[in-house]
Amino acid sequence: MKSIEHIGIAVEDLDEAEKRFEALLGVSSYKREVVESEGVITSFFRVGDVKIELLSSLDRQSAIAKFLEKRGEGIHHIAFGVKNSAQSLKEKVEAGFIPISAEPKAGADNKEIAFLHPKSTHGVLVELCSDQQ
Amino acid sequence: MKSIEHIGIAVEDLDEAEKRFEALLGVSSYKREVVESEGVITSFFRVGDVKIELLSSLDRQSAIAKFLEKRGEGIHHIAFGVKNSAQSLKEKVEAGFIPISAEPKAGADNKEIAFLHPKSTHGVLVELCSDQQ
Repeated sequence: MKSIEHIGIAVEDLDEAEKRFEALLGVSSYKREVVESEGVITSFFRVGDVKIELLSSLDRQSAIAKFLEKRGEGIHHIAFGVKNSAQSLKEKVEAGFIPISAEPKAGADNKEIAFLHPKSTHGVLVELCSDQQ
Repeated sequence: MKSIEHIGIAVEDLDEAEKRFEALLGVSSYKREVVESEGVITSFFRVGDVKIELLSSLDRQSAIAKFLEKRGEGIHHIAFGVKNSAQSLKEKVEAGFIPISAEPKAGADNKEIAFLHPKSTHGVLVELCSDQQ
Protein backbone atom coordinates (compact mmCIF):
# COMPACT_ATOMS: atom_id res chain seq x y z
CA MET A 1 0.00 0.00 0.00
CA LYS A 2 1.57 3.29 -0.98
CA SER A 3 -0.69 5.65 0.97
CA ILE A 4 -3.92 6.20 2.79
CA GLU A 5 -6.09 7.72 0.09
CA HIS A 6 -9.14 8.51 2.20
CA ILE A 7 -11.20 7.59 5.24
CA GLY A 8 -14.91 6.97 4.62
CA ILE A 9 -17.43 8.08 7.26
CA ALA A 10 -21.10 7.06 7.11
CA VAL A 11 -23.53 9.85 8.08
CA GLU A 12 -27.30 10.20 8.19
CA ASP A 13 -27.71 13.81 7.05
CA LEU A 14 -25.06 15.05 4.63
CA ASP A 15 -25.88 18.77 5.00
CA GLU A 16 -25.57 18.63 8.77
CA ALA A 17 -22.44 16.45 8.70
CA GLU A 18 -20.74 18.75 6.18
CA LYS A 19 -21.24 21.73 8.51
CA ARG A 20 -19.92 19.74 11.48
CA PHE A 21 -16.85 18.51 9.62
CA GLU A 22 -16.16 21.99 8.26
CA ALA A 23 -16.09 23.21 11.89
CA LEU A 24 -13.95 20.26 12.93
CA LEU A 25 -11.44 20.28 10.08
CA GLY A 26 -11.28 24.02 9.42
CA VAL A 27 -11.77 23.50 5.66
CA SER A 28 -14.82 23.30 3.41
CA SER A 29 -15.94 20.30 1.42
CA TYR A 30 -14.38 20.65 -2.03
CA LYS A 31 -16.91 18.53 -3.88
CA ARG A 32 -20.00 16.39 -3.69
CA GLU A 33 -20.49 13.40 -5.93
CA VAL A 34 -23.31 10.92 -6.38
CA VAL A 35 -22.26 7.30 -7.00
CA GLU A 36 -25.45 5.92 -8.55
CA SER A 37 -24.26 2.31 -8.64
CA GLU A 38 -23.69 2.38 -4.84
CA GLY A 39 -26.80 4.41 -3.98
CA VAL A 40 -24.75 7.02 -2.13
CA ILE A 41 -23.90 10.70 -2.17
CA THR A 42 -20.39 11.61 -1.05
CA SER A 43 -18.71 14.81 0.13
CA PHE A 44 -14.93 15.23 0.18
CA PHE A 45 -12.58 17.19 2.45
CA ARG A 46 -8.79 17.44 2.27
CA VAL A 47 -6.65 17.13 5.41
CA GLY A 48 -2.99 17.25 4.44
CA ASP A 49 -2.51 14.52 1.82
CA VAL A 50 -5.51 12.46 2.93
CA LYS A 51 -9.19 12.91 2.10
CA ILE A 52 -12.18 12.50 4.35
CA GLU A 53 -15.19 11.13 2.45
CA LEU A 54 -18.60 11.56 4.05
CA LEU A 55 -21.08 9.01 2.71
CA SER A 56 -24.83 9.31 2.92
CA SER A 57 -27.36 6.86 1.54
CA LEU A 58 -29.73 7.65 -1.36
CA ASP A 59 -31.30 4.19 -1.33
CA ARG A 60 -32.61 2.11 1.56
CA GLN A 61 -30.96 -0.97 0.08
CA SER A 62 -27.48 0.57 -0.16
CA ALA A 63 -24.53 -0.78 1.81
CA ILE A 64 -24.37 2.56 3.67
CA ALA A 65 -28.07 2.39 4.65
CA LYS A 66 -27.46 -1.10 6.03
CA PHE A 67 -24.33 0.00 7.90
CA LEU A 68 -26.18 2.97 9.45
CA GLU A 69 -29.04 0.74 10.50
CA LYS A 70 -26.73 -1.80 12.09
CA ARG A 71 -23.92 0.35 13.56
CA GLY A 72 -25.08 3.95 13.42
CA GLU A 73 -22.97 6.82 12.13
CA GLY A 74 -19.19 6.54 12.20
CA ILE A 75 -16.06 5.45 10.39
CA HIS A 76 -17.01 3.08 7.57
CA HIS A 77 -13.79 2.19 5.73
CA ILE A 78 -10.13 2.99 5.14
CA ALA A 79 -9.13 3.39 1.50
CA PHE A 80 -5.51 2.61 0.66
CA GLY A 81 -3.98 4.07 -2.48
CA VAL A 82 -2.55 1.35 -4.73
CA LYS A 83 -1.08 1.41 -8.23
CA ASN A 84 -3.58 -1.01 -9.77
CA SER A 85 -6.61 -2.10 -7.77
CA ALA A 86 -7.20 -5.31 -9.80
CA GLN A 87 -3.59 -6.44 -9.31
CA SER A 88 -3.65 -5.48 -5.63
CA LEU A 89 -6.95 -7.33 -5.11
CA LYS A 90 -5.46 -10.44 -6.72
CA GLU A 91 -2.38 -10.29 -4.47
CA LYS A 92 -4.42 -9.76 -1.30
CA VAL A 93 -6.76 -12.65 -2.12
CA GLU A 94 -3.72 -14.87 -2.72
CA ALA A 95 -2.45 -13.77 0.72
CA GLY A 96 -5.69 -14.99 2.32
CA PHE A 97 -7.80 -11.83 2.45
CA ILE A 98 -11.47 -12.17 1.53
CA PRO A 99 -12.73 -10.00 -1.35
CA ILE A 100 -16.21 -8.48 -1.26
CA SER A 101 -16.49 -8.73 -5.04
CA ALA A 102 -14.29 -10.56 -7.55
CA GLU A 103 -13.38 -7.48 -9.61
CA PRO A 104 -12.85 -3.76 -8.91
CA LYS A 105 -15.61 -1.34 -9.86
CA ALA A 106 -15.93 2.40 -10.51
CA GLY A 107 -16.01 4.54 -7.34
CA ALA A 108 -16.29 8.25 -6.61
CA ASP A 109 -13.50 10.64 -7.61
CA ASN A 110 -12.61 8.76 -10.87
CA LYS A 111 -11.25 5.85 -8.87
CA GLU A 112 -11.36 2.12 -9.42
CA ILE A 113 -12.10 0.42 -6.11
CA ALA A 114 -12.21 -3.03 -4.55
CA PHE A 115 -13.04 -4.06 -0.99
CA LEU A 116 -11.66 -6.63 1.43
CA HIS A 117 -14.11 -8.10 3.92
CA PRO A 118 -13.73 -6.95 7.56
CA LYS A 119 -13.73 -10.55 8.77
CA SER A 120 -10.30 -11.00 7.15
CA THR A 121 -8.89 -7.68 8.43
CA HIS A 122 -9.73 -7.55 12.16
CA GLY A 123 -13.00 -5.73 11.59
CA VAL A 124 -11.73 -3.07 9.16
CA LEU A 125 -13.48 -2.62 5.82
CA VAL A 126 -10.47 -2.07 3.53
CA GLU A 127 -10.79 -0.34 0.17
CA LEU A 128 -8.07 -0.75 -2.47
CA CYS A 129 -8.22 2.40 -4.54
CA SER A 130 -6.41 3.30 -7.78
CA ASP A 131 -6.88 5.72 -10.64
CA GLN A 132 -9.06 4.22 -13.37
CA GLN A 133 -6.86 2.04 -15.59
CA MET B 1 -6.26 20.23 11.47
CA LYS B 2 -2.98 20.05 9.62
CA SER B 3 -2.86 16.30 8.91
CA ILE B 4 -4.15 12.87 9.73
CA GLU B 5 -1.54 11.63 12.17
CA HIS B 6 -2.80 8.07 12.58
CA ILE B 7 -5.79 5.76 12.49
CA GLY B 8 -6.37 3.63 15.61
CA ILE B 9 -7.67 0.08 15.21
CA ALA B 10 -8.84 -2.01 18.19
CA VAL B 11 -7.79 -5.67 18.01
CA GLU B 12 -8.15 -8.66 20.32
CA ASP B 13 -4.81 -10.40 19.74
CA LEU B 14 -1.90 -8.09 18.92
CA ASP B 15 0.44 -10.83 17.65
CA GLU B 16 -2.13 -12.13 15.20
CA ALA B 17 -3.23 -8.66 14.10
CA GLU B 18 0.38 -7.56 13.51
CA LYS B 19 0.93 -10.50 11.15
CA ARG B 20 -2.31 -9.75 9.31
CA PHE B 21 -1.53 -6.05 8.93
CA GLU B 22 2.02 -6.83 7.80
CA ALA B 23 0.49 -8.96 5.02
CA LEU B 24 -2.07 -6.27 4.22
CA LEU B 25 0.23 -3.24 4.27
CA GLY B 26 3.42 -4.82 2.98
CA VAL B 27 5.47 -3.31 5.82
CA SER B 28 6.39 -4.48 9.31
CA SER B 29 5.37 -2.84 12.56
CA TYR B 30 8.15 -0.40 13.48
CA LYS B 31 7.47 -0.36 17.19
CA ARG B 32 5.34 -1.54 20.06
CA GLU B 33 4.58 0.63 23.02
CA VAL B 34 2.67 0.09 26.24
CA VAL B 35 0.59 3.02 27.46
CA GLU B 36 0.15 2.09 31.12
CA SER B 37 -2.25 4.92 31.92
CA GLU B 38 -4.65 3.69 29.20
CA GLY B 39 -4.20 -0.02 29.88
CA VAL B 40 -3.22 -0.72 26.26
CA ILE B 41 -0.39 -2.03 24.16
CA THR B 42 0.03 -0.43 20.75
CA SER B 43 1.82 -1.39 17.54
CA PHE B 44 2.63 1.13 14.80
CA PHE B 45 2.89 0.84 11.02
CA ARG B 46 3.72 3.54 8.50
CA VAL B 47 1.72 3.93 5.28
CA GLY B 48 2.98 6.97 3.37
CA ASP B 49 2.79 9.88 5.81
CA VAL B 50 0.12 8.31 8.03
CA LYS B 51 0.47 5.74 10.79
CA ILE B 52 -1.76 2.80 11.59
CA GLU B 53 -1.91 2.15 15.35
CA LEU B 54 -3.15 -1.25 16.46
CA LEU B 55 -4.49 -1.15 20.02
CA SER B 56 -4.93 -4.15 22.26
CA SER B 57 -6.16 -4.11 25.85
CA LEU B 58 -4.00 -5.02 28.85
CA ASP B 59 -6.77 -4.34 31.35
CA ARG B 60 -10.42 -5.42 31.36
CA GLN B 61 -11.44 -1.94 32.49
CA SER B 62 -9.65 -0.10 29.66
CA ALA B 63 -11.53 1.92 27.04
CA ILE B 64 -10.30 -0.53 24.38
CA ALA B 65 -11.62 -3.55 26.32
CA LYS B 66 -15.00 -1.84 26.56
CA PHE B 67 -14.99 -0.95 22.87
CA LEU B 68 -14.11 -4.54 21.89
CA GLU B 69 -16.85 -5.89 24.11
CA LYS B 70 -19.45 -3.53 22.67
CA ARG B 71 -18.46 -3.23 18.99
CA GLY B 72 -15.89 -5.94 18.31
CA GLU B 73 -12.62 -5.38 16.48
CA GLY B 74 -12.33 -2.50 14.02
CA ILE B 75 -11.50 1.15 13.52
CA HIS B 76 -11.48 2.91 16.88
CA HIS B 77 -10.45 6.53 16.22
CA ILE B 78 -8.94 9.03 13.81
CA ALA B 79 -6.07 11.12 15.19
CA PHE B 80 -5.57 14.53 13.63
CA GLY B 81 -2.20 16.22 13.89
CA VAL B 82 -2.48 19.66 15.47
CA LYS B 83 0.11 22.20 16.60
CA ASN B 84 -0.99 22.31 20.24
CA SER B 85 -3.55 19.82 21.52
CA ALA B 86 -4.64 21.96 24.51
CA GLN B 87 -5.28 24.99 22.29
CA SER B 88 -7.03 22.87 19.68
CA LEU B 89 -9.20 21.21 22.35
CA LYS B 90 -10.19 24.65 23.66
CA GLU B 91 -11.14 25.86 20.17
CA LYS B 92 -13.16 22.73 19.38
CA VAL B 93 -15.05 22.91 22.67
CA GLU B 94 -15.85 26.57 21.96
CA ALA B 95 -17.14 25.44 18.54
CA GLY B 96 -19.58 23.05 20.24
CA PHE B 97 -17.66 19.76 20.22
CA ILE B 98 -17.81 17.64 23.38
CA PRO B 99 -14.48 16.80 25.06
CA ILE B 100 -13.93 13.41 26.67
CA SER B 101 -11.63 14.96 29.26
CA ALA B 102 -10.99 18.60 30.09
CA GLU B 103 -7.23 18.51 29.45
CA PRO B 104 -4.90 16.62 27.10
CA LYS B 105 -2.87 13.73 28.48
CA ALA B 106 0.23 11.77 27.49
CA GLY B 107 -0.33 9.22 24.69
CA ALA B 108 1.84 6.73 22.83
CA ASP B 109 4.67 7.93 20.58
CA ASN B 110 5.58 10.96 22.76
CA LYS B 111 2.34 12.67 21.88
CA GLU B 112 -0.04 14.80 23.88
CA ILE B 113 -3.59 13.76 23.08
CA ALA B 114 -7.19 14.86 23.69
CA PHE B 115 -10.42 13.27 22.49
CA LEU B 116 -13.73 14.60 21.20
CA HIS B 117 -16.81 12.53 21.94
CA PRO B 118 -18.34 10.66 18.97
CA LYS B 119 -21.78 12.06 19.76
CA SER B 120 -20.54 15.48 18.66
CA THR B 121 -18.76 14.20 15.52
CA HIS B 122 -21.27 11.93 13.75
CA GLY B 123 -20.03 8.82 15.49
CA VAL B 124 -16.29 9.38 14.99
CA LEU B 125 -13.97 9.28 18.02
CA VAL B 126 -11.62 12.16 17.18
CA GLU B 127 -8.15 12.44 18.70
CA LEU B 128 -6.30 15.77 18.68
CA CYS B 129 -2.63 14.88 18.69
CA SER B 130 0.42 17.11 19.08
CA ASP B 131 4.04 16.70 20.10
CA GLN B 132 4.45 17.06 23.86
CA GLN B 133 4.65 20.77 24.68
